[in-house]
Amino acid sequence: MNPSLLPPPGGHLDIPIGDVVTEAGASIPGTRLRLHAFYDATCPEPAATDRPVLLVEHALTGDGDVAQWWPGMVGPGCPLDTNRYLVLCANVIGGCSGSTGPGSLHPDGGYWGSRFPGISIRDQVSVEKRLLDVLEIPRVHAVIGASMGGARALEWALMYPGSVNAALVIAVSARASAWQIGIQSSQIRVIEADQAWHGGDYYEAGMGPVWGLGQARRIAHLTYRGELEVDERFGTDPQQGEDPYGPYRRPDQRFAVESYLDRQAQKLQSRFDAGSYVTLTDALNRHDVGRGRGGMNAALGRCEVPTMVVGVDTDILYPFHQQEHLSRNLGNFIGLSKITSPTGHDGFLIEGRQMGPILTKFLVKADLLAAGE
Amino acid sequence: MNPSLLPPPGGHLDIPIGDVVTEAGASIPGTRLRLHAFYDATCPEPAATDRPVLLVEHALTGDGDVAQWWPGMVGPGCPLDTNRYLVLCANVIGGCSGSTGPGSLHPDGGYWGSRFPGISIRDQVSVEKRLLDVLEIPRVHAVIGASMGGARALEWALMYPGSVNAALVIAVSARASAWQIGIQSSQIRVIEADQAWHGGDYYEAGMGPVWGLGQARRIAHLTYRGELEVDERFGTDPQQGEDPYGPYRRPDQRFAVESYLDRQAQKLQSRFDAGSYVTLTDALNRHDVGRGRGGMNAALGRCEVPTMVVGVDTDILYPFHQQEHLSRNLGNFIGLSKITSPTGHDGFLIEGRQMGPILTKFLVKADLLAAGE
Repeated sequence: MNPSLLPPPGGHLDIPIGDVVTEAGASIPGTRLRLHAFYDATCPEPAATDRPVLLVEHALTGDGDVAQWWPGMVGPGCPLDTNRYLVLCANVIGGCSGSTGPGSLHPDGGYWGSRFPGISIRDQVSVEKRLLDVLEIPRVHAVIGASMGGARALEWALMYPGSVNAALVIAVSARASAWQIGIQSSQIRVIEADQAWHGGDYYEAGMGPVWGLGQARRIAHLTYRGELEVDERFGTDPQQGEDPYGPYRRPDQRFAVESYLDRQAQKLQSRFDAGSYVTLTDALNRHDVGRGRGGMNAALGRCEVPTMVVGVDTDILYPFHQQEHLSRNLGNFIGLSKITSPTGHDGFLIEGRQMGPILTKFLVKADLLAAGE
Repeated sequence: MNPSLLPPPGGHLDIPIGDVVTEAGASIPGTRLRLHAFYDATCPEPAATDRPVLLVEHALTGDGDVAQWWPGMVGPGCPLDTNRYLVLCANVIGGCSGSTGPGSLHPDGGYWGSRFPGISIRDQVSVEKRLLDVLEIPRVHAVIGASMGGARALEWALMYPGSVNAALVIAVSARASAWQIGIQSSQIRVIEADQAWHGGDYYEAGMGPVWGLGQARRIAHLTYRGELEVDERFGTDPQQGEDPYGPYRRPDQRFAVESYLDRQAQKLQSRFDAGSYVTLTDALNRHDVGRGRGGMNAALGRCEVPTMVVGVDTDILYPFHQQEHLSRNLGNFIGLSKITSPTGHDGFLIEGRQMGPILTKFLVKADLLAAGE
């Protein structure tokens, strides 16, 4: 790797990768990606730039700061051991955490807004491949991702088998299911219906479709969590000081779970851009490893990269049968792990005590494979 | 039963039941319920009014016309045999198909609109008990309902055990789960956000929150269907003549499943009132057999009415473990049946070949119980 492009440990660097043309033929000139790096700089041997690279792929509303959203997974002595590996994670194109997206400035002036094209998971990956080329990293030790990051990890294995030693694909499927497209497109509809959306060109107005983004998140969050876990926490409890059982229904008299969802909405509203949410949700809708490759199972069957699959037993959004399907069809399948948790899809974030050993097991396999054993 | 209040066979009658006070203390003066009746009038013995009554409870957007929404289940020789039974079904209070609801005229002028109170499932049932009193029906042979109708059937058994010989409770739970409240309150939010909602007082404006109702239905429909069934039908197919994979995301370039959900939305928009949808969705949120009864399991344990439970194995909205929970806790439990279907919650409507024999089995048991065997 080019040492001059290595971000400081735990920090990030914005790296220009030039002009991008999407799978569907649209242009994104002057694309930049924000790259985060994690490595223990106090550990002199091997030098960070000589360590095997673990490329982590973040989920829809994640970003490059893996240590923040995957606590306990990355660091010295952690499963993604920063004494041994150089852990890299780039904010996705279309996102809003430093990489080029709808909220970025357009080279011709103003914000990208509605001029930002539709992107696919493959676009996200081909842009990242360009980043690795700029970084002079010909091959990564492993690519690891969950949810939308899992879709990218899978496409990495299919698109650039020569650049990836092994892949860990977590809580995702070979393609969007119709149910996912349905619930995801409903979220997009709600954002588009917000009067502040302005067709996606709201960035100069000073006020965005915050209401729509919050409503989308409320719906999405219920697909990220297990229904048993949500019920155990909130049941039919009223929110403290409010009475949803009163003589007249009132929006300010809520159940505890409504207040919880409102908090999830507020948290996302304060940290994420609606335009990026729409762009990346649409990318998830476009996810299909079979497109242009003779179908889903044929594409999976040709996968040369040793790939391990992980799912959560109570996942509503990406049900476990989808990971079983990947396992049955991947050409170079090296194992399936199940996270057992009432928490649903978010189990990969929450169940660190299960996720950690799975990462370790995967890296033991990846190390053995790299050593030719 | 009072023969002068018997609707014509397959027809209906609007029956005044007087002033209602809700569980939470609000008044609904001059309440009327629209009663539908199904009986074979060509079969002279016993006379329709002397036949054992089967009281059917419809679901959220259903109505009293059982023969329409439950095809093949009611009629001569059908599981709900109109030669043997008098099948009655009333449109629920708060609905929009003939019974008093937010779209009805208020005795003080104008439409009820926001003056219509919050109602609970128990309110729906106590109002129906008033109807049976007016009809001079002291006791029904069986009460049968699914989904919101199942919640009513369950409350019938708990509230009026002296008036019900047996109950069939289909695809519902002992109380709303937090997940249900979450997804249902999200639907209410979308309707409330429609500019045409006007706080619920839109009836005189000539235009209602049709957009919001449609968006709510899109979301709801995905909870009524199984994800495997939706995926088998639509997968990632584009809608014919549209290209959701194009260079720019456009709302008019849809996946097939989006078009399908749009059709579901349009169908409901043309036949249902948004105010009723909000009122009845809120009633589902309030469903809790344990409220004021020492908790859910204590309430179920005291159930004296012989009750049979039915669920669908792929139900997302009312998962089968909820029917297993009812079965473990009902004081007078007489059986659990599982509908096996990829269709999810709507399986009780769609899988007639399974639902029919379950209804027949239940009525055999109910007949034996009534005969004291």
